Parts: sequence; structure tokens; C-alpha cells
Amino acid sequence: MFKAIIYVTLKESVLDPQGVAVQGSLHTLGFANVKEVRIGKRLEVLVEGESKQQAEEQVKVMCEKLLANPVIENYTYEVEEVA
Amino acid sequence: MFKAIIYVTLKESVLDPQGVAVQGSLHTLGFANVKEVRIGKRLEVLVEGESKQQAEEQVKVMCEKLLANPVIENYTYEVEEVA
Repeated sequence: MFKAIIYVTLKESVLDPQGVAVQGSLHTLGFANVKEVRIGKRLEVLVEGESKQQAEEQVKVMCEKLLANPVIENYTYEVEEVA
Repeated sequence: MFKAIIYVTLKESVLDPQGVAVQGSLHTLGFANVKEVRIGKRLEVLVEGESKQQAEEQVKVMCEKLLANPVIENYTYEVEEVA
């Protein structure tokens, strides 16, 4: 069994309205020194498979097809073997 | 200026319907070997401040008050100095 940790983040050039909203809320709470907030996703995916390399290849396809939108998002991932 | 990377994840005991939905979609796409998907958040917060320690203390309060729901979520964070 392999566990993939996947991070999906908006590209630098893409506006993040959710982050802007959270920044506004932090300002309201008194954190006036917060200059930027950007919000992405962290996914944990457990996959059964023969080898780490095969799992990594599968995770890459999952990201391209479903987990990320490559037009506006970047993704990175790490795969490790788990018991 | 300090950059905090914050991870907010559901506690182990909490159901993740979004993850279950994504797992179902991955099965539909042919990834029958996906055993579990859990979805959390990854936040980048830029804060101005005097010291790393002060920034870390602020980020902890932000997490407790707004960024995470301590009843059902765990959070971790790393703070580093940036230019």
C-alpha cells in the first residue's frame, strides 16, 4: 500500500477570492499585519499497488485528469510506502 | 516578512464526504485500487512582523480562531522568513 500526499495550489497569476476573504476576516480579527492569504488543497490518497514507481505514475494521471485543473492550478506530490 | 504554510486536516475519526466523492470519481475513471481519499487545506499566509517567534504565535491564534475548527480538524504549520 502506498500513501500519496498531494498539494494543489492556484498558479501565482490566478486570483484567489477565497484567500482574499480569509485575509479580510483576519484583518477584522485584528491581524492587520497579514499581507496575503492563498488557499490550496492537501489530499491524502491511499493506493494499492506493486511498486512505488507505478503508484507515482498513477497519482500523476489522477492529478491531470481529476484532482487538479492544470489550466489554473499547480500540483506536487510525494508517495511513500505504508504498512 | 514571514511566510506560514498551514495544513488543516480532518481528524481521523471524522467522516470526509468530499474525499468519499473524489474516491468514487477515481473509481469511475478506472483507479479501482484507490482505497481512501481524504481532503484537507493548505494555506499560505504572509505576515509582517519583528520575529519568527511572534509570527508563529500569531499563526497559532489564527488557526484556533478562524483557519481551523479545533473540534473536527487538526492543524500544523511551519513559519519561515522571506524577503
